[in-house]
Amino acid sequence: MGLEYEGTSYHGFALQPNLRTVQGALEEALRRVLGHDVRVTAAGRTDSGVHARGQVVSFSTEARLPDAAIARAVNTFLPCDIVAADSVEVSQGFDARRCALRRSYRYTIWRGQRRDVWQRRFSTHVPDPLDVDAMRAAAERLTGQHDFTSFIGHASQQRAGGSPVRRVTTAEWSIDGSLLHFDCAADAFARHMVRNMVGTLLSVGRRRRSPDGMREILWARDRRVAGPTAPARGLTLMSVDYENQESHS
Amino acid sequence: MGLEYEGTSYHGFALQPNLRTVQGALEEALRRVLGHDVRVTAAGRTDSGVHARGQVVSFSTEARLPDAAIARAVNTFLPCDIVAADSVEVSQGFDARRCALRRSYRYTIWRGQRRDVWQRRFSTHVPDPLDVDAMRAAAERLTGQHDFTSFIGHASQQRAGGSPVRRVTTAEWSIDGSLLHFDCAADAFARHMVRNMVGTLLSVGRRRRSPDGMREILWARDRRVAGPTAPARGLTLMSVDYENQESHS
Repeated sequence: MGLEYEGTSYHGFALQPNLRTVQGALEEALRRVLGHDVRVTAAGRTDSGVHARGQVVSFSTEARLPDAAIARAVNTFLPCDIVAADSVEVSQGFDARRCALRRSYRYTIWRGQRRDVWQRRFSTHVPDPLDVDAMRAAAERLTGQHDFTSFIGHASQQRAGGSPVRRVTTAEWSIDGSLLHFDCAADAFARHMVRNMVGTLLSVGRRRRSPDGMREILWARDRRVAGPTAPARGLTLMSVDYENQESHS
Repeated sequence: MGLEYEGTSYHGFALQPNLRTVQGALEEALRRVLGHDVRVTAAGRTDSGVHARGQVVSFSTEARLPDAAIARAVNTFLPCDIVAADSVEVSQGFDARRCALRRSYRYTIWRGQRRDVWQRRFSTHVPDPLDVDAMRAAAERLTGQHDFTSFIGHASQQRAGGSPVRRVTTAEWSIDGSLLHFDCAADAFARHMVRNMVGTLLSVGRRRRSPDGMREILWARDRRVAGPTAPARGLTLMSVDYENQESHS
């Protein structure tokens, strides 16, 4: 099932006791449609305040409903800030998380002098002058397969216990009027990875670091040498790619 | 002072005891900047849930601050859903409401089959097929100087006690992807007037009324013959025009 949501009023995607989460709202809506308890798996476990335009979730059900009917029915029970885009039956072994080949995120910055009423939930306000060319050069140095320890929160590494190596296939800045977008795609992301990259790239834009400094940061494998974590509200999960499938977005 | 705001969390512009209003938030911010109580006058007293991109307010102060400094300072005290765009000193007799020559509003409809997470605060969802050509023809019949009694709420007429005659200079529909905009400008608007026009034009779009029916509705001077009031969230005050001035937007 493809899913869009505004993350502003949620404590992230993943279920947490006594907190409002996207997973909680979705599983409750699915329970009402399918008539049984449902546990969903998401391609990207977005953090508190992070949005999604192309989240993908998978779940098992014995209910016999036409593919698209599930999304339509679920939408009548979902809150106004979550919407199911589509639903399709997949093979038994499919898992939205494990089978995902690539996740694409976009981080948006509002560069106007004044804070903006309309973009405030979906962007971070950076009124300072930014050297976008330097930010582009720095971003380029993050593409490829690297040990991203310097861009991953300690807690995340301890919890996950997995490899900090990721393959970043896209890391590009684009200008759209007073908005500045950072598009980043990788096989997978660790927690806060995009936001830590953005915080570091912004310090390059402010000329506090050089683009070449990115390599040293990667080599250091130390979270303390990279920049701060950019705020969640600027981040959106745009799409997830699977084998033999078009991009879900 | 030019003002933008998202009206979602306000009980309209005009001050009301014990309710959150745009005027209340603005006057409190101005009081903190100017050091004395301030009473503002707005060009358009937007209703609960209605937004503004080009609201204009006037007020008197003895404070000696550079023109633009007032807007900048006020923005540090305003909540995140209200922003002052600019501020400029005007002559003693200027009144943002009485001196306004023209107000321009935009009403936005989301036509996608699914409700939309991103447009939901700023549009009304109408998934039914709409005959936009008929809506355009009907809108054209509303332009010019007319008695708009049929499009004005009873309470508003009783309260105001003024004339129900207005001169509508623009009443146009435009298509923007899955969005449909109704741009309407007039010398002045009575309460709910744009929203009642939109509700009636939508019934034309659904082929429940003919474009020519607009004339009969105007002639009837009876609120009961026109269509329902469209929801507030689709409406935005776009700009206000004054003599010898560029449009404030």
